[in-house]
Amino acid sequence: MHHLHRDKLFSLFDEEENAIVYMKGAELMYRYDTDYEFPFRQESNFWYLTGVNEPDFHLVLDLNKQEYHLFAPNRNAQYAVWHGHVKSKEQYQEEYQPDHLHVEGKLPQVLRELDPDKIYCVDEVQAEFIEEFDRKTPIDLDDLPEAITHCRVFKTGWELDQMREAARVNNIAHRGVLETLEPGKFEYEMKAVFDYHQIRNGLLQDAYNGIFATGRNSAILHYVENNRQIKSEDLFLIDAGFEYNGYASDITRTYPASGTFTSRQAAVYDAVLEAQKQVIEAAKPDVKMEDIHVMAARLMMEGLRDAGIVSGSIDDLMEEDVFALFFPHGLGHFLGLDTHDVGGYPKGVDRIERPGVKYLRTRRTLQSGMVLTVEPGLYFIPALLKPALEDEKMASFLNASILREMMEFGGVRIEDNLVITEEGYENLTDVPKERADIEKVMKK
Amino acid sequence: MHHLHRDKLFSLFDEEENAIVYMKGAELMYRYDTDYEFPFRQESNFWYLTGVNEPDFHLVLDLNKQEYHLFAPNRNAQYAVWHGHVKSKEQYQEEYQPDHLHVEGKLPQVLRELDPDKIYCVDEVQAEFIEEFDRKTPIDLDDLPEAITHCRVFKTGWELDQMREAARVNNIAHRGVLETLEPGKFEYEMKAVFDYHQIRNGLLQDAYNGIFATGRNSAILHYVENNRQIKSEDLFLIDAGFEYNGYASDITRTYPASGTFTSRQAAVYDAVLEAQKQVIEAAKPDVKMEDIHVMAARLMMEGLRDAGIVSGSIDDLMEEDVFALFFPHGLGHFLGLDTHDVGGYPKGVDRIERPGVKYLRTRRTLQSGMVLTVEPGLYFIPALLKPALEDEKMASFLNASILREMMEFGGVRIEDNLVITEEGYENLTDVPKERADIEKVMKK
Repeated sequence: MHHLHRDKLFSLFDEEENAIVYMKGAELMYRYDTDYEFPFRQESNFWYLTGVNEPDFHLVLDLNKQEYHLFAPNRNAQYAVWHGHVKSKEQYQEEYQPDHLHVEGKLPQVLRELDPDKIYCVDEVQAEFIEEFDRKTPIDLDDLPEAITHCRVFKTGWELDQMREAARVNNIAHRGVLETLEPGKFEYEMKAVFDYHQIRNGLLQDAYNGIFATGRNSAILHYVENNRQIKSEDLFLIDAGFEYNGYASDITRTYPASGTFTSRQAAVYDAVLEAQKQVIEAAKPDVKMEDIHVMAARLMMEGLRDAGIVSGSIDDLMEEDVFALFFPHGLGHFLGLDTHDVGGYPKGVDRIERPGVKYLRTRRTLQSGMVLTVEPGLYFIPALLKPALEDEKMASFLNASILREMMEFGGVRIEDNLVITEEGYENLTDVPKERADIEKVMKK
Repeated sequence: MHHLHRDKLFSLFDEEENAIVYMKGAELMYRYDTDYEFPFRQESNFWYLTGVNEPDFHLVLDLNKQEYHLFAPNRNAQYAVWHGHVKSKEQYQEEYQPDHLHVEGKLPQVLRELDPDKIYCVDEVQAEFIEEFDRKTPIDLDDLPEAITHCRVFKTGWELDQMREAARVNNIAHRGVLETLEPGKFEYEMKAVFDYHQIRNGLLQDAYNGIFATGRNSAILHYVENNRQIKSEDLFLIDAGFEYNGYASDITRTYPASGTFTSRQAAVYDAVLEAQKQVIEAAKPDVKMEDIHVMAARLMMEGLRDAGIVSGSIDDLMEEDVFALFFPHGLGHFLGLDTHDVGGYPKGVDRIERPGVKYLRTRRTLQSGMVLTVEPGLYFIPALLKPALEDEKMASFLNASILREMMEFGGVRIEDNLVITEEGYENLTDVPKERADIEKVMKK
């Protein structure tokens, strides 16, 4: 189905122009100066255009003739002994369907024959590589990244199917964790269960370094240690997903380790859940990401005010950036071949330099075919709250006695993955998030 | 316990010399141009000398005063929000016990104060880094890599304890796979079981990209796809291990998917097992790795000859490199902070350029305190056998009709991890390898 991606890219360039796209696929990566080899994972743009998930390929797109040249590596018998079967040219042709299949050394000759007036590359490194073979042709580094990003933001039907499959397995893995969560276990035991479900369903590549965080660790946004023992008074936060055919799933849930939410856990949880549900209902074409980000923040401030944790008008809590003490990240991000997928900030739109907004990863207007995460959260982060309690203005909005009790509380985040459709949205995530549903599963 | 490693290193340098060692710890690694972050894993030499498994540290060893300067990164409150607690200087001091703890920016000042006559570095990249701060002092790139390698080859008691723990968990994980292996499952389901046992025991970092190979894939030495369905006539080969505190375990077993070895599987298996057991019994101080490599090869050729697969004298089969068609890799390698650990080829000892020997990763004489793998194997690799059957001389040793039937047979490898002791060896591996024991577990 990758020919549709190439067609999309071709359509963005002037076919009158005698130009080519050159792109280098990924090579194997090793750890430092050792032979520890990372599992191969193709670079996302190359994967998008080719579907090739093997190292050492190159491509040339002839924008004038709209033809696809694929350059396959030259493997010998020694390669077969160590790495398996060496594919024949016919097998590469059959599998990847280029208009022209070449072996790697042919790149200079093909460049001479095409004799382009311009070469589009994605970055400086690739430009330097192609300049080794062609020193005369001007190279353009601006248009190709922008064009591929544009293509990747709007998923095709086939891409959505890959994302549905990644989500389907992720739903199973998250449910598996919920079913086995209990006090006394360690965070890594939850990771063991999660990875088990992914891998046994054939998903071998994580989409990101998952977070399995209990107690105060659940308020560390990028927690990766995963080695604390789960206590019965803890919240447990899991933020994890794997890839299917390169396409990511990215789900977060927060559960009470004891199986039952305390009243304080319930108050914070409901504030986040209510915000998440309302934002999801609001998601549809022509809605601005930053508007629903602010909407989520306001709703969560209402929840915290109802719980007696903050006080003051919602407008003041927003205006004075009190909300950012509790919600210091963005509402969501695009999702696709990368977990934080490309396109969040199109050219000319800069990040807003304001606490609680500048980490918002997309400021775009939603349109049909986009896939994004919706992940509001409320956290009790000592590194933010302690200075705020010392600050006269901030402290006037804060209930100091409750907050001092909550320094070990951690945080709550709830994250689903949405496809924006003509009518509104399709939610790919199906893991219990209502308090009653969570408690019911955990009681079994 | 890392102070013992530093003491060992200090003892190898002339303390009269006014010189220092400079080493840069690892930074976080990202995939291509994205924010996909690999789980942090310290560079092995830095880990060996410091025990620090966090990014962005540096060290200076003052060889004259035998003092350890550790440079910790400067973290701010924003770091605490995203990555967790920011440790105080006191916490770093307590945890890593340097003689002098500095924050990162202090490196130039410390260099000026120490004013060394020479700086030892492990490689060009680190030398270039330190030259930014000190352009006048000569840099030596030869002695430090050799000295650290020497230290790392001979494990301390504490290091052996870490390796015993890695092995203990690996034994559990391998046994878990053996207990669940059956036809109809996919290779990745075996990986799911394996990883599950490692991670639930708290081992989060694989020591290498594991091999879970069935049927003909078991003859691919570095098979990583892990996506074939297991058939009842298949051999299933698993070669996998995780790290404990940075120290690797590396075990291989080969099982009949059906639960019972066929007579041909049994003949090949017994040839490998007999060689492996005899080589292990021969392992002790003063034995040369290359001698036991040849011993294993000869024993396996006897097995293949008994099975009617090859013919001719063992001397001829060795002399004419027939053995290398079936056993194209080395008998084993050092094991430690890296899976293919340092020190296999000390200075002045080159790899032997001969098929079946040049991949031997260590040619050293065994000595007490070394840890190594013993992993003979026999494979039926079409990419090697087909040309050999066409070669008149080679073909004269081969039973063509049997070998043509065995192109899908795959391979057998059996790998244990040994500590060389004063008396002989300690075998860290305890996973069934006798045919009867394997069949007994699989029948349950």
